[in-house]
Amino acid sequence: MGVDAAVRLADLTFAALREASLDPPGVSRASYGPGERAAHAIVAAAAEEIGLEVEADPIGTLSMTLAGADRSLPPVVIGSHLDAVPHGGNYDGAAGVVMGLALAARLKREGRILPRDLVVLGLRAEEMCWFPMLHLGSRAAFGLLPADAPDTLRRTDSGRTLAEHMAEEGLDPDFIRQGRASLDPHSIHAFIEPHIEQGPVLVEAGRPAAVVTGIRGSLRHRACKATGAWGHAGAVPRQGRQDAVLAVASLAGALEEFWRVAESGGRDLVLTMGEFRTDPALHGPTRIPGEVTFSLDIRSEDPAVLRAAEALLRDQAETIRAERGVAIDYGPALPVPPASMDERLRAALLRGAEAAGVPVLEMASGAGHDALTFAGLGVPTAMLFIRNEHGSHNPEEAMAMADFGAALDVLAASIETIAAR
Amino acid sequence: MGVDAAVRLADLTFAALREASLDPPGVSRASYGPGERAAHAIVAAAAEEIGLEVEADPIGTLSMTLAGADRSLPPVVIGSHLDAVPHGGNYDGAAGVVMGLALAARLKREGRILPRDLVVLGLRAEEMCWFPMLHLGSRAAFGLLPADAPDTLRRTDSGRTLAEHMAEEGLDPDFIRQGRASLDPHSIHAFIEPHIEQGPVLVEAGRPAAVVTGIRGSLRHRACKATGAWGHAGAVPRQGRQDAVLAVASLAGALEEFWRVAESGGRDLVLTMGEFRTDPALHGPTRIPGEVTFSLDIRSEDPAVLRAAEALLRDQAETIRAERGVAIDYGPALPVPPASMDERLRAALLRGAEAAGVPVLEMASGAGHDALTFAGLGVPTAMLFIRNEHGSHNPEEAMAMADFGAALDVLAASIETIAAR
Repeated sequence: MGVDAAVRLADLTFAALREASLDPPGVSRASYGPGERAAHAIVAAAAEEIGLEVEADPIGTLSMTLAGADRSLPPVVIGSHLDAVPHGGNYDGAAGVVMGLALAARLKREGRILPRDLVVLGLRAEEMCWFPMLHLGSRAAFGLLPADAPDTLRRTDSGRTLAEHMAEEGLDPDFIRQGRASLDPHSIHAFIEPHIEQGPVLVEAGRPAAVVTGIRGSLRHRACKATGAWGHAGAVPRQGRQDAVLAVASLAGALEEFWRVAESGGRDLVLTMGEFRTDPALHGPTRIPGEVTFSLDIRSEDPAVLRAAEALLRDQAETIRAERGVAIDYGPALPVPPASMDERLRAALLRGAEAAGVPVLEMASGAGHDALTFAGLGVPTAMLFIRNEHGSHNPEEAMAMADFGAALDVLAASIETIAAR
Repeated sequence: MGVDAAVRLADLTFAALREASLDPPGVSRASYGPGERAAHAIVAAAAEEIGLEVEADPIGTLSMTLAGADRSLPPVVIGSHLDAVPHGGNYDGAAGVVMGLALAARLKREGRILPRDLVVLGLRAEEMCWFPMLHLGSRAAFGLLPADAPDTLRRTDSGRTLAEHMAEEGLDPDFIRQGRASLDPHSIHAFIEPHIEQGPVLVEAGRPAAVVTGIRGSLRHRACKATGAWGHAGAVPRQGRQDAVLAVASLAGALEEFWRVAESGGRDLVLTMGEFRTDPALHGPTRIPGEVTFSLDIRSEDPAVLRAAEALLRDQAETIRAERGVAIDYGPALPVPPASMDERLRAALLRGAEAAGVPVLEMASGAGHDALTFAGLGVPTAMLFIRNEHGSHNPEEAMAMADFGAALDVLAASIETIAAR
């Protein structure tokens, strides 16, 4: 079998995206910036070539529609975002939009008409590194942003407001200020977000794709601080110390133990203390550390596990204060509830995979995605992961087109079931 | 009872030292710099006023001698250093020299003639923050420095060599280059170093002074590094992680457990991980930390405990590599062997304390001191700690003159025993 026409189209589209947003090493596609603008133009042009109806809402959300048999029915929506982190990879986000196009192209080529419209969605501003707002683009399209967001959110690279950047792109910040929406959760039959996997699970499992079971919710504390007392490393006995490093190390130990116990009980959990820092202006090898700043990121598909983690944090803070004289302040929490993927959609994708002969895995998504926004609003939602090496958010991100093709086969084999009543 | 004349002399000397080296907040007396120079001049003038024989060796070590009955016998030496850390306290080091002067003044005033000379020693360059060499001044006086030290050691504040700074003070770096010595361990009957306590032990025990049992040796690794792998905080399962923060936290936990076990077995130990740092240029709350730099400082009076700690470090590195895929490199070690204080001198001081009615504690010294140099060369050595609040090496250091007076009473009540055959 030669290379499928839809996969070739996708490959050319990826090449065009890469070229338009090249920023060695990798690509950069700033939210509401030039790289994202170029990506939207490339994808829109490809959609027009396929023969889809292309339109954008006032904030730049791109809808590319393949007409179905009954145009009055809520459509099936497939898509993801087109922005990318600085010097990131070419596939994070873009793979989901391009796969929607490839599916539409294949359906059109094979003359398959779905019972309802298929909308390929190109979202904006998913990467939080540009604007400090979770899933800005999809939440804005649903009218969920605070009215002052265009004027208070500033892009981290430029320091300029979202409104300024939107205006520069010819888009309308009043859409957000006025709380308008271009997407309505009740008018979407199903949302499917194909996305590259961001961990090594599929590489290690030797499978080209995975049906996602749920998106982990998270409990994040980005700015925690432990305050003990500075002292002479040789002269203060153990009982007189208020050592902030040993205190936070013991917290890490308790969290890791909690993780082991949760895992052995079959509960989903990952946790990360990504930052752990004594202050170079104050610390020294012969000084008992009086202060540590650190971060916590705790994720699970299971809300009960997140609640248990929260209770553990409170409990540890009390124990550590009592036993070590070290005060732990976790700072503000950024809780994101987990989202289950729709049972019916998952089953359809699994049956499609079987029919297509593609060996898929079932796994949780550790990272958040636009799919969270849709699922949180009650839209039946599913995600399809594509195998990818070296993680995402870096230029070494590597998705093979053969795996993209396998995932496309899964979608193509299940889309009629998904689009059915 | 009014204030003792010797204590008043000491108080005036401290005031003069403070005034001459004031560098708010605190005092600064750089090794071979202006503050140290002024301190030596003030102390020498006070010694002359008391009627001691004052002389300095070619590297600025100050000897102030009260003649004894038989001047051919090896003298009792009492002293400490006169340099001080930047913005430090006025008493660290200086209290030992001033106490030697106060003791000589009291003996002289009371017409007590010791069987041998009493030499009050004003050392230089003990604080390692100025030149990166342990106890530079006392080791230089014994001829123990490498010949190239004057030309290779650079002062951390100025970047200039020891030789340049010595020349600026009118001193002779050739003394060190030629390996000469002004102190001979075989010609010292006993060395006593009074020093403020640098921890909170005496404050908490409610005692004015302590007889030191030994000086803790140390095992220091100032530049350790743990190398794992960076990854996505949400997307990599526990088994696939090489988390450097959790690895070093577990090392900290193992060391703390070792500490508890040693302590419950009555073994002397303190340990400190003073630095623990993920790199702000690389870390992030949603990134699995791939690298941590940290420091280790492990101290004990007991060489066997230090050896056991060293074995534990090796063992932990192997376990952590095997179980977590994180490589631990402890970097260079800076081992300093512990020193026992002389039994006979300790007993004399304890008896003196009893006779003087001063309730003293017996405790280990966690910090290193010039006394380490003397003890390491086989000189019978003792230390007397004076109660001090808020630790040392900071401007809040606070010794009460009443405690200084109590410690002086202990010395005065034991000096005849110490000076005896």
